[in-house]
Amino acid sequence: MNKSILDVLDHQVRWPPPIWLMRQAGRYLPEYRAVREKAGDFLKLCFTPELAAEVTLQPVRRFGFDAAILFSDILVIPYALGQPVRYSVGEGPQLDAIKDRSALARLKTEIDQETLAPVYETIRLVRQSLAAPVALLGFCGAPWTVASYMIAGHGTPDQAPARLFAYEDPDGFAALIDTLVDASAGYLIGQLQAGAEAVQIFDTWAGVLPAEEFGRWCIEPTQRIVAKVRAVVPAAKIIGFPRGVGAGLLRYVEQVPVDAVGLDWMVDLSFARDQIQWRMPVQGNLDPLVLVAGGAALDRAVDAVLEALGERPFIFNLGHGILPQTPIAHVERMLARVRGARS
Amino acid sequence: MNKSILDVLDHQVRWPPPIWLMRQAGRYLPEYRAVREKAGDFLKLCFTPELAAEVTLQPVRRFGFDAAILFSDILVIPYALGQPVRYSVGEGPQLDAIKDRSALARLKTEIDQETLAPVYETIRLVRQSLAAPVALLGFCGAPWTVASYMIAGHGTPDQAPARLFAYEDPDGFAALIDTLVDASAGYLIGQLQAGAEAVQIFDTWAGVLPAEEFGRWCIEPTQRIVAKVRAVVPAAKIIGFPRGVGAGLLRYVEQVPVDAVGLDWMVDLSFARDQIQWRMPVQGNLDPLVLVAGGAALDRAVDAVLEALGERPFIFNLGHGILPQTPIAHVERMLARVRGARS
Repeated sequence: MNKSILDVLDHQVRWPPPIWLMRQAGRYLPEYRAVREKAGDFLKLCFTPELAAEVTLQPVRRFGFDAAILFSDILVIPYALGQPVRYSVGEGPQLDAIKDRSALARLKTEIDQETLAPVYETIRLVRQSLAAPVALLGFCGAPWTVASYMIAGHGTPDQAPARLFAYEDPDGFAALIDTLVDASAGYLIGQLQAGAEAVQIFDTWAGVLPAEEFGRWCIEPTQRIVAKVRAVVPAAKIIGFPRGVGAGLLRYVEQVPVDAVGLDWMVDLSFARDQIQWRMPVQGNLDPLVLVAGGAALDRAVDAVLEALGERPFIFNLGHGILPQTPIAHVERMLARVRGARS
Repeated sequence: MNKSILDVLDHQVRWPPPIWLMRQAGRYLPEYRAVREKAGDFLKLCFTPELAAEVTLQPVRRFGFDAAILFSDILVIPYALGQPVRYSVGEGPQLDAIKDRSALARLKTEIDQETLAPVYETIRLVRQSLAAPVALLGFCGAPWTVASYMIAGHGTPDQAPARLFAYEDPDGFAALIDTLVDASAGYLIGQLQAGAEAVQIFDTWAGVLPAEEFGRWCIEPTQRIVAKVRAVVPAAKIIGFPRGVGAGLLRYVEQVPVDAVGLDWMVDLSFARDQIQWRMPVQGNLDPLVLVAGGAALDRAVDAVLEALGERPFIFNLGHGILPQTPIAHVERMLARVRGARS
């Protein structure tokens, strides 16, 4: 049996569309919370293959999603470059903020693949356990998004610290981006060689940049990652996800040779269908909040996505990660509606 | 002498372009901080005409901007509808969050114009003091943006509480929007009748909505405000500012008959020139952070804006409010560059 997500990434139409959810292994699941508590530390969970494999598999077992996505975090790359990262319960991650060139200079210039070896082992374990039709996805953060956390030390409403750093020291910032391009490409190659069947590049904070900076810090570095990965793994399937870039999405799909693009929940469905989807498969874009709300609003929103995007190559997903307060019954309702929809 | 901003709103090209800055009366100015400290309470500053007029005039005196913008806040409307609003030093505004229909029912259905009378008096005082070529702008928040603060009680990264409220109780949310449409229209009419020469409608949080909700909660209510204002003040000049809406900007200018549209700092300059500016004058869109950074990055960014937008009707501004940490010398450098630029 073919894996439906891989078929879609090959520009085939599958009906009902394959479905997975960003952050599907996460806090909305009681079985995840149990493992998380047992592991104690979040990084320990990421770097203990048996535990990471278990939480990767949980949502596939419960819901029968068409893909598993590696349980990990985009900040394992700064960690593997020597920047301390802490995850406190109930708060976002905290890094020692990079405030100047001397802090930049203390980073390693190459990732420590030894640190990341447990991630690759997780991938091998998951592949052994996955049923044949379910694809395994890997991922990394895009250099701009990762750099913006490294400089701020935490999430901010608009990642202003990194934007300011890039204006004030463009050469220093470019050096950090270069390091992250190499690190991310090496990390994705490692994931693909361990058994990931496609990878997604999350550029969560692409949308806060002016157009020129979006080109310089998002598009161009992502082009380089794609080229570096394909130089080693020529058939690598890559999904890009530049969140919040509005009309910039068109520029992204024209300039970055990914196999599919993720749509955030703000993307207009007719714009996506008419301007984006004839070029490449799309993935998305239900508002995670309408999945929290449930009811008639959820049904209408699911139908609107299916109607707009279902006739061309399409992977059903949310427009951002599933929220911790999402009721499981709403996920089941959405799945039934997607899978029961008539073509 | 004609007022250059009003000429631009009449679709004339002025060179050098007129310039003002969002939040130009604000914390980056020592003379503002002195008055703010004297007033003590922020709302007292908004509602004491002599003090509000003074801070409105300060940036015009110091920099010779081409417009003064009324010193006030978008949350005076919830306040005039009976919702308590508090401004603590160093924090954003806090309202008693509206969590359900019973809280909605406790709001007045019409604004108390008596509460807003000091704002109109401020406008009269400023008009008496302004030199002939300087225009006076009024403003309000758009209903979606104001409602999103009323429901969350404070600013959030993506105004999720209001989005969830609207999914779960669309009729209740629509009633709140209707109240805000009437209140905002009445408030803008009051400002125009008191002497404001144009008004801006700030939809700061338009960008977090999916496309269908953007139409329902941003575009349609703003259309109604424009119609209601022009029914009483037929020649009213209105600038729309839907922040962060990306490709939705095109839909906004096609569907909302404003006289000009503000561009946030993420808007691509060639998109703005080719898709937007032939329809109506545009205003913007320097990144407030490049004004903090200064130096060569600032010069290049100013030049890029002027080069892209200077040949058609254009008002120079930032793409969002000026930041408190902005050095005054950088504002002076930007002004000299805008006003010294060759056409």
